[in-house]
Amino acid sequence: MLLYETLANEFSALIADGRIQPGDRLPSVRHLSQQRQLSISTVVQALRTLESRGMVEARPQSGYYVRHRPARLLPAMPTRPPALPVEVGVSKRLVEILQINERPGVAPLGSALPAPELLLAPQLNRLYSSIARRYPKLLSGSSHNSLSENALCKAIVRRSLEWGCAIASEEIVVTNSCTEAIALCLRAVTQPGDTVAVESPTYYVMLQLLESMGLRALEIPTHPQTGVSPEALELATRERRVAACLLIANGANPLGGVMPDAHKERIAKLLAERNIPLIEDDIYGDICFTKARPRPIHAFDRSGNTLLCTSFSKTICPALRVGFIAAGKRSADLVLQKTLNSGKTNPLSQRVLAELMESRGFDAHLRKLRRRFAEQVARTRDAVMQHFPAATRVTDPQGGFVLWLELPEEIDTFALHRRAVAEGIVFVPGELFSASGQYRNCLRLACGHPWKDETEAAIRRLGALIGR
Amino acid sequence: MLLYETLANEFSALIADGRIQPGDRLPSVRHLSQQRQLSISTVVQALRTLESRGMVEARPQSGYYVRHRPARLLPAMPTRPPALPVEVGVSKRLVEILQINERPGVAPLGSALPAPELLLAPQLNRLYSSIARRYPKLLSGSSHNSLSENALCKAIVRRSLEWGCAIASEEIVVTNSCTEAIALCLRAVTQPGDTVAVESPTYYVMLQLLESMGLRALEIPTHPQTGVSPEALELATRERRVAACLLIANGANPLGGVMPDAHKERIAKLLAERNIPLIEDDIYGDICFTKARPRPIHAFDRSGNTLLCTSFSKTICPALRVGFIAAGKRSADLVLQKTLNSGKTNPLSQRVLAELMESRGFDAHLRKLRRRFAEQVARTRDAVMQHFPAATRVTDPQGGFVLWLELPEEIDTFALHRRAVAEGIVFVPGELFSASGQYRNCLRLACGHPWKDETEAAIRRLGALIGR
Repeated sequence: MLLYETLANEFSALIADGRIQPGDRLPSVRHLSQQRQLSISTVVQALRTLESRGMVEARPQSGYYVRHRPARLLPAMPTRPPALPVEVGVSKRLVEILQINERPGVAPLGSALPAPELLLAPQLNRLYSSIARRYPKLLSGSSHNSLSENALCKAIVRRSLEWGCAIASEEIVVTNSCTEAIALCLRAVTQPGDTVAVESPTYYVMLQLLESMGLRALEIPTHPQTGVSPEALELATRERRVAACLLIANGANPLGGVMPDAHKERIAKLLAERNIPLIEDDIYGDICFTKARPRPIHAFDRSGNTLLCTSFSKTICPALRVGFIAAGKRSADLVLQKTLNSGKTNPLSQRVLAELMESRGFDAHLRKLRRRFAEQVARTRDAVMQHFPAATRVTDPQGGFVLWLELPEEIDTFALHRRAVAEGIVFVPGELFSASGQYRNCLRLACGHPWKDETEAAIRRLGALIGR
Repeated sequence: MLLYETLANEFSALIADGRIQPGDRLPSVRHLSQQRQLSISTVVQALRTLESRGMVEARPQSGYYVRHRPARLLPAMPTRPPALPVEVGVSKRLVEILQINERPGVAPLGSALPAPELLLAPQLNRLYSSIARRYPKLLSGSSHNSLSENALCKAIVRRSLEWGCAIASEEIVVTNSCTEAIALCLRAVTQPGDTVAVESPTYYVMLQLLESMGLRALEIPTHPQTGVSPEALELATRERRVAACLLIANGANPLGGVMPDAHKERIAKLLAERNIPLIEDDIYGDICFTKARPRPIHAFDRSGNTLLCTSFSKTICPALRVGFIAAGKRSADLVLQKTLNSGKTNPLSQRVLAELMESRGFDAHLRKLRRRFAEQVARTRDAVMQHFPAATRVTDPQGGFVLWLELPEEIDTFALHRRAVAEGIVFVPGELFSASGQYRNCLRLACGHPWKDETEAAIRRLGALIGR
């Protein structure tokens, strides 16, 4: 990050936390410049950034003041779902909501999809053309061949070292997507009727997968910043048979937390000891706002118990349709599940991804993308804080590009959704992130698109709807 | 088909039926030439074809005689599975068998995959290269766009007319494969615990899908030549709630039957009246050996109750990873299932398929492929008839490229599989095609690869193993 951004984000956090209150005056430009050893122009740029985010206002001849901001951060404590496994029954309402959210013309606050212009579709297109010419026999191999192209395995192995996580070529199973990867892992390690431990709230597609396989969900208390509680997971798996655990440790969806390394280590050890397979969704790992790219739990697991699932739909292009599993000691089972359920993923697409991952500009692209998403999330959050009722609480995501909002208790976000749709605004109601009916007064906003005046206007209207 | 092939196949059928017995003399070349108004050389070629198939032998100065052939066709009567829905539990053994069958170095009699050299991978490769250049923006569309590329929908609509079945563009949902198509349909129309009616025997992947979704299988009596019995289906669905029916009407796997149009019409009507969605797998429709390309059941259904699923993995290239559903009145549900479970199928691959389907040589390719598969199936069947014990019964497939064998009752094909593997021969044991433990003495042989001496040798060794 640039220096001015670092400074601006620091003050954003202080304001969001409430440690600097609305009406407070910020230190002067001269003072900040001396104290932080930054140039005057850097400090001014930081303050203007805060101003453009609507967090401070300049008063002539006086300085910068924190604006009145009714909404606050979600308290730093874990959620409290019920401690019993439950049947999952979200898919019917989920289908209804998504059907509405996919309509053209609504503000892009529903699906967690990046704006196409932020990603690398044109680069992919050029690679398809050149690789199809360079490797005329890529598609002719019989499906008896390995499911995973060598070139892609090599690229994954190399990149995993940057994740602080040495993935072995032999454990890789290339899939059509991260969702397919998770579905195959669930099939490999569970039977209908089994219980699977998940974060609470958790991504609705996870719940929908459990439901479609007749699996029960055990929701584990989850902290908005640090993810699932290791203590709670320890307790929940002590006496009850849990067939698998399904987590997003880096840039959780919807809470946006990044699990600290110590928790990752503890959870990896716990689950290995209890022989509970860990299915880890790391799709947001490359777009976290932490100083370094956070390590997946897979990095802390030497037992082969962790099945890391990911794809590049959030960073390269959702249309590519290539993801993978690093399946640890269960790779033979996963090879078979993949063979049986969908066959080998298009080998041309696999090599296109490999060359893109190894291309010169890819790291710079990821850095830029992280900055963009951090900015979009901050803008959206600021607008929520400004325009939503005072009792609203919002997350401070450390990765990904979604925000989770807790509204006043009397608000039913399903009913709110109906009213919002009429005004061209969509979101995902909170109850769809729980198997046990939690989060009726919560909702998720996606921030995958560059900030526009229309986005601010949509959030203002949504805040007004809630206020009524 | 060429004239000599038609004649050879006619005699093949008469011999296989037992209407011409081993030791019988065939009519003379001159006689056949006059009777059929064929040239002498055509008749000679037909007889030599029969000879090369091991069905007849030339005796000097005397003519062609039918060889002694111990194995016979399967009797023309439906199977008799139990009339109750059962939990499905095939996947564990299936996984074990397929894991063995995928090992390199075994004769290609296990998986129903065509030899790569019979298909169109090089053509696909060229199309990828040219289309990626011609349409540089194909991958950049946001996933909010339609799941199905217009160009592909148009190609499907046009081709469906040749299938005698007017598919509407609005009902098409493009998928990653035929298996994915079927899985999405099952998810859309069933809940865990529901009962699904299937052929008996049925393709093991169908059973594995039912198992993974917690669905119960109701096996319906199925005729080796005409497919599922309409009477039995009528009875089975009269008093019991059946959530869906899953059929392969054209070139069934494993029996190879093609359902007569009258049965198709009757079944379409029956299921529509009882509001039981029909999921129809038509992946073998283009490679049937009938005079015309047989119509799918979808062609006889005006109610929108039939969900036709297919892909081009058997005719173009399994690596392409594009299939589709013609979802009838349930297209909105299927669009959503697809969005939720795997997102839009790679749009570049969609257009590649569209241009290939519309290319000049495609129909000629299909004609040639049908001839090849018919030939490979006939050769394999002839070798089975020649080398297997007398009590063996074998199907006379009207499409596809698999053979179904019924061995003497005391043979357990799981045990046989273990012994065969040691000799480098694999197949799929019959029990995996049933949820209720039928077909222990049956097995499936795939004939997707061009006939070689090694294939004959493998079948001879397998026959000897059974004889012991």
